[in-house]
Amino acid sequence: MDVTIRRDATTPIYRQIVEQVRDQIVSGVLPAGFRLPPVRQIAAQQGLTRLTVHSAYAELQAQGLVEAQVGRGTFVAPGAIGHEGNPDRVSSRSEWMKGGLIAGLLRADASRDMISFAQAFPAPEALPVRELERAMRAVLKGSNALGYGPMQGHVELREAIAALVLERGVSARPDNILVTAGAQQGIDVVLGACTQPGDTIAVEEPTYPGILDVAALRHLKVIGVPADEGGIRVDALRTTCTSHRPRLLYLVPTCSNPAGRTLAQERRAALLHLAHAHGVTVVEDDIYGLLPFDAPAPPALKSDDAADVVIYVISFSKMVAPALRIGGLIAPPSLLPGLAAAKGSSDLVCSSLLQLALAGYLRQGHLAPHLRAVRDMYRERAEAMCRGLERYLPACRWSRPEGGLSMWVRLPDGVSERDFATDAFRAGVALVPGGMLFPDAQQHGHMRLSFGTEPPERIERGLRLLGRVLEGHLRRNSAAPVMAHGTASPLV
Amino acid sequence: MDVTIRRDATTPIYRQIVEQVRDQIVSGVLPAGFRLPPVRQIAAQQGLTRLTVHSAYAELQAQGLVEAQVGRGTFVAPGAIGHEGNPDRVSSRSEWMKGGLIAGLLRADASRDMISFAQAFPAPEALPVRELERAMRAVLKGSNALGYGPMQGHVELREAIAALVLERGVSARPDNILVTAGAQQGIDVVLGACTQPGDTIAVEEPTYPGILDVAALRHLKVIGVPADEGGIRVDALRTTCTSHRPRLLYLVPTCSNPAGRTLAQERRAALLHLAHAHGVTVVEDDIYGLLPFDAPAPPALKSDDAADVVIYVISFSKMVAPALRIGGLIAPPSLLPGLAAAKGSSDLVCSSLLQLALAGYLRQGHLAPHLRAVRDMYRERAEAMCRGLERYLPACRWSRPEGGLSMWVRLPDGVSERDFATDAFRAGVALVPGGMLFPDAQQHGHMRLSFGTEPPERIERGLRLLGRVLEGHLRRNSAAPVMAHGTASPLV
Repeated sequence: MDVTIRRDATTPIYRQIVEQVRDQIVSGVLPAGFRLPPVRQIAAQQGLTRLTVHSAYAELQAQGLVEAQVGRGTFVAPGAIGHEGNPDRVSSRSEWMKGGLIAGLLRADASRDMISFAQAFPAPEALPVRELERAMRAVLKGSNALGYGPMQGHVELREAIAALVLERGVSARPDNILVTAGAQQGIDVVLGACTQPGDTIAVEEPTYPGILDVAALRHLKVIGVPADEGGIRVDALRTTCTSHRPRLLYLVPTCSNPAGRTLAQERRAALLHLAHAHGVTVVEDDIYGLLPFDAPAPPALKSDDAADVVIYVISFSKMVAPALRIGGLIAPPSLLPGLAAAKGSSDLVCSSLLQLALAGYLRQGHLAPHLRAVRDMYRERAEAMCRGLERYLPACRWSRPEGGLSMWVRLPDGVSERDFATDAFRAGVALVPGGMLFPDAQQHGHMRLSFGTEPPERIERGLRLLGRVLEGHLRRNSAAPVMAHGTASPLV
Repeated sequence: MDVTIRRDATTPIYRQIVEQVRDQIVSGVLPAGFRLPPVRQIAAQQGLTRLTVHSAYAELQAQGLVEAQVGRGTFVAPGAIGHEGNPDRVSSRSEWMKGGLIAGLLRADASRDMISFAQAFPAPEALPVRELERAMRAVLKGSNALGYGPMQGHVELREAIAALVLERGVSARPDNILVTAGAQQGIDVVLGACTQPGDTIAVEEPTYPGILDVAALRHLKVIGVPADEGGIRVDALRTTCTSHRPRLLYLVPTCSNPAGRTLAQERRAALLHLAHAHGVTVVEDDIYGLLPFDAPAPPALKSDDAADVVIYVISFSKMVAPALRIGGLIAPPSLLPGLAAAKGSSDLVCSSLLQLALAGYLRQGHLAPHLRAVRDMYRERAEAMCRGLERYLPACRWSRPEGGLSMWVRLPDGVSERDFATDAFRAGVALVPGGMLFPDAQQHGHMRLSFGTEPPERIERGLRLLGRVLEGHLRRNSAAPVMAHGTASPLV
């Protein structure tokens, strides 16, 4: 076992040990059963405290890579290779949930050089580092950037949000805006303030998985409403309203997650009318509303909300930078005090510093050119993904996304999405099996592919790899054909 | 009505109008019933768009300062003066809750030149602006400061937290730490992950009010356990465990909020033993553990937690800066996946930028000298408060805090804490009536006075004002004596 400590590195020594030993285990240099040198020996050799080495060993043990045996020492664990983030170990929604669905995806990203189609993240190289740094420095000259600030959010930011959402046809007074830690907290706050445990909520199918996590933790029942090329089906929603009386409906009507499609114009008035008639609050997640590839998207549902049934959710995570942790809710005035109380109970306030810096960034007009640039980038990446699908996975079905950061791909009949995702992961490509985006967590024969974080050439390479994986699956399927439903005998 | 627009100011024009008109209303220059000039007139005079002026009027209306009458114009509202944050309007916990208890306190702060004893905030002038700015700039040179980062928190920060809590006697592996948005989110996440709606939890009385907000929104019953000079009473806790079977116990055992006192040494083992025997998880909020005035505080409860029943909560809001929105949980390994899922469901992650900047700040050793400086400052302020109480409110009872940011003061018998708080507010001093810190929200004849944000001379002035208010109350009481309980006739 070789360990080389670089004392001038920014990585703490403890982590250097963890990483080096881990690499040697994963690459097979240190086989299962190999006994690691005693802590005191490494400490003496390297001139380190025993605590440092001990911490590294404890971390390796926590990762399942080594095992400590009392009185004998520390050994490389059997089956340690490929342990971390392996979707073999993630076979149901509840298992994903244990570590958090999104945690699972984030973890996959942290592992070896994967091509990641799993996360609907913005492009890291496009994050506006310099502009935000300048905005933060300006704000730190003021006196209130490091304190708590108002619970509803700083008025400077709420004013900037009010100005921004005009582009989506939404007119809001700063007073009706609540600043939240991204859209995820917006959703959590809405469900916390507007539902009781045991209530039912409706979501379009497939849906953003974060809502399913919130619903599970808040003890809500979730009913899926099918969507087609035109978005959520209003006839199906009508049936759901009558039969399940949902308290609210959550959807992404513009550049949806996962499909990147937009609710058809002719369904919008009907949907709002139906919600009003059944007392259903509509939660409109519009985080991609300013990220369509071509012409501006149709105005938000909220723009047409005469009956005041819509709570409008935005976020700056995709538009500007995830690390801002800033989004917002625009809600009917009667709901705002309850929402503000739920936000306060959740984490008091969002960071004053980041709020004021974002307000400055927006006021100085940086957003419009930034959005133009990233829209071009995401269009190009989406096109690379479509080309790759055509070329390497011609047996799949999908439609071109209108915007957003991901697309929804149907696998050929008989291919298990979970097996496919597992084999794709082994081949070096991370993706989300479609079932994770349904309330029932069953397999629906789809996958979500996100294209925000990888440049076109890596997107192409990823699809080539996926194409090979799919070929293997199709070969296996033709060798052992799946029995068609119509010819199956009853199980008696 | 005079409005002077400064186009070079950083304050948006809209707000300049709001603030100037508001000042003129509050100071009585514009009396109730005064008709404001029409929007178009101000717009034309000042060369502004009508939308800007309209937004300002709408905001004034939302603040209750003006009223719009259709077809007639906009008028100064009757009773507009002193409207905002007036505790007259805050007569029960549920009313505080509507805007969030803490929202009420924050709102009071935003009003005119109040002396604020209401918030247990750190001193604004002591916030380490330059060190944090430098840490942020360093971090922005890296590649991952603006992305999502890992849901459990960046390992650099978890390592720094592990090193820090050693000073509290707590030994934790980075793997067992979950980064949260301050202690408030830590508490919310614990209650979300470790309770079911309808469960009972126990808190010491009086308690940090944020836990009561969380419990209400999570549909939990809360049982108060009385505390005395030695902290929570273990005999009372035993009774509570037997009769109410609480799922968990929340307390601040070191430099408590509100009293600044520390759990007696001889009660600690008994408390942990009791919790273990009854299957009660102990939530130890240790946000003041490194902020005692004199000698180091006794080690945290968690340091003695052989049975692994304690979830340990820390925050950097008081120690470094609230706008970081960073704290952490140290939890038994079996609970960590559930806690991480609850955190992710709540807001995905804390800001990578702020986490990495804080990690840098801690690694560079800035915290120790900063804590020395603020401890001296808070000791001086606490002493100023004690002197002021002795001099101006000799009829009150209190004990000298050992640390933290507030103290707990018992009013003379017969003085209503709510009336006293209301009159104090009118006299220019904000404080928290003690009932807000009890699960039953009844009056207990106490007030919480926080001393973190005001310099000693303003603390003295505030107590002089409170002394006058109390004299008035005592005179009234002696004129109309409260009937003693023992001599009261039954109401038949």
